[in-house]
Amino acid sequence: MPAIDHFWAVIPAGGAGTRLWPLSRQSSPKFLRDLTGSGRTLLQETHDRLVPLAEDRFVVVTGAAHREAVAEQLDDLAETAILAEPSARDSMAAIGLAAALLERTDPDAVMGSFAADHVIDDPAVFADAVRTAVDVARAGWLVTLGIEPTFPSAAFGYIHVGDPLEAHPGAAAVREFVEKPSAEVARGYLDTGCYRWNAGMFVVRPTVLLDLLAEWHPDFAARLRELAADLSRLEEIWPTLPKIALDHAIAEPAAAAGRVATVPAAFGWDDIGDFDSLATLLDQAREHDAVGTTVLGDEDLVHVVESSGLVIPRGGRMVAVVGLDDIVVVDTPDAVLVTTRARAQQVKQVVSGLKDAGRADLT
Amino acid sequence: MPAIDHFWAVIPAGGAGTRLWPLSRQSSPKFLRDLTGSGRTLLQETHDRLVPLAEDRFVVVTGAAHREAVAEQLDDLAETAILAEPSARDSMAAIGLAAALLERTDPDAVMGSFAADHVIDDPAVFADAVRTAVDVARAGWLVTLGIEPTFPSAAFGYIHVGDPLEAHPGAAAVREFVEKPSAEVARGYLDTGCYRWNAGMFVVRPTVLLDLLAEWHPDFAARLRELAADLSRLEEIWPTLPKIALDHAIAEPAAAAGRVATVPAAFGWDDIGDFDSLATLLDQAREHDAVGTTVLGDEDLVHVVESSGLVIPRGGRMVAVVGLDDIVVVDTPDAVLVTTRARAQQVKQVVSGLKDAGRADLT
Repeated sequence: MPAIDHFWAVIPAGGAGTRLWPLSRQSSPKFLRDLTGSGRTLLQETHDRLVPLAEDRFVVVTGAAHREAVAEQLDDLAETAILAEPSARDSMAAIGLAAALLERTDPDAVMGSFAADHVIDDPAVFADAVRTAVDVARAGWLVTLGIEPTFPSAAFGYIHVGDPLEAHPGAAAVREFVEKPSAEVARGYLDTGCYRWNAGMFVVRPTVLLDLLAEWHPDFAARLRELAADLSRLEEIWPTLPKIALDHAIAEPAAAAGRVATVPAAFGWDDIGDFDSLATLLDQAREHDAVGTTVLGDEDLVHVVESSGLVIPRGGRMVAVVGLDDIVVVDTPDAVLVTTRARAQQVKQVVSGLKDAGRADLT
Repeated sequence: MPAIDHFWAVIPAGGAGTRLWPLSRQSSPKFLRDLTGSGRTLLQETHDRLVPLAEDRFVVVTGAAHREAVAEQLDDLAETAILAEPSARDSMAAIGLAAALLERTDPDAVMGSFAADHVIDDPAVFADAVRTAVDVARAGWLVTLGIEPTFPSAAFGYIHVGDPLEAHPGAAAVREFVEKPSAEVARGYLDTGCYRWNAGMFVVRPTVLLDLLAEWHPDFAARLRELAADLSRLEEIWPTLPKIALDHAIAEPAAAAGRVATVPAAFGWDDIGDFDSLATLLDQAREHDAVGTTVLGDEDLVHVVESSGLVIPRGGRMVAVVGLDDIVVVDTPDAVLVTTRARAQQVKQVVSGLKDAGRADLT
């Protein structure tokens, strides 16, 4: 299959991944890490799976602190393809700036925005979904990929799918976006068959995106277009942009207005939100029977007696675990974490606690 | 109180402490470590509590590999007070050699043998018990201190106490020594009030000890006396000595023959057999309410969220624990152990497993 004409891949590369501490740090966030043992970082894998669709048409938006690391990891990229945010201002500003630039660069552009730290297990199914989404986006829709849920996750938002779009086989209207539900409510969603995971993957024409933004946040849209017209004003304009997620700024009101479509797709997806999620992913990838311990790294550095869970030996030292089920042990040169898969969400409390204790150097 | 005339303190300083790995190593066993945070090692504390009774009359028996470390830690000791075993041959050989030497050095000697890695919380009560035991030993008994049990431990052996000795107030005959019982049997022992913990603390005249040995193991006793007469034959004779514990070689048959007495005593005692035992000891010492986590070491290196147990940060790195009860985390520069207080006995399986895996360097 050839690449998609005028298709631009936008990769927001942000997020500290605090629930993956001490593996993920502010200075070395999860998108810069090889979390799956594949030999490629999450950012590189995101890039790899988009190259067949976008060729060299990429825009990576990242924090100024990570610009150099991103350029090193994606060394094929043109220097101008990396936008460095002077400060973190959430996804609307990041993706909106990319849209405003593309609107000027390529009037026929369709952009697809895909976070740098997600894992997708079937690039071909992903590519098919993007191709369909691009067709729908050309007709003026804001299109989101709707991931088929494989379990009733309480950690993801959901897309409530509406009627099929007659003009676009494989696509449907989005009735609404739903915030993370309880596990019980999520189970009900799965039973109906009408709900999809919202992975925050949007495909849209840049002008449609900015025009939608202009409906609900006209100043925001205007400032993004001003900035795109003169990037030398970045330091001046950027700090004035609202800190808001694209979902809240555009996607939710646009869905209510009947302007959002979804392309349901069945590729395996995970945002590796915490060590429990990472353990599940690694077990699936290795067709592991979920008995015993999964090691991410050098197995010779792990010695386990009657235990199960995830051990990540990155400190060069021996890690021994005796008599613990569903344990998570992450060893690094300056910090070691011990928790359980069930409590993995609370790891972010360690990060905030360390900051409070004056040990931000470890976060 | 003055010291006890002709009383010699014998300190067998051996044992790898494999259940305290990775804190305790072959190269740095637990008696050389400050396991309680007191500022003194277990060996030094053992010595400290015996100085008021023995003054400078000490014999420390240790492995050749630890001779130098022992001499450094007990720098008041005469060089001849340290006997270096060419190889580990269990307690009968170690204590028997000390007895054979003392028999020649001081015909009026009474020796007391006290392991280098035990913890005792009341030196005055201990000293009183030793004084009584020395009086009984002068009358020809093999005397053992009988520790009042504070809980039905399945980890210690027991002394079944018989009739009081009329000639020696505070002492009683020993009916028999009992191997580690089940927790249920131990509970029954406590109910009767007739059982004491066997801490392996023996007080006896050296000649009585060797004569008892000669009754059941005549060659063994003869070889020890030959060796004491000419220590230059150590390398020749030592490897031929049987590997047997003093309890089995002498104490058990002598008890059956009505030749063993016990002095019951109520000092707090622990052999710090594993991390569960260490945690209990630290909690008692700190009048800790057993809620939350006990830290042995620098508290600034430990960050805990909703957890309880024991954390020992000796690796200089941050140790974070999230959502685990009765956890044990021991961090050292080259190895980290994660287990629970309940499974602490199994830590020795890690040590044997590492040896099998060719990582004896870590044990």
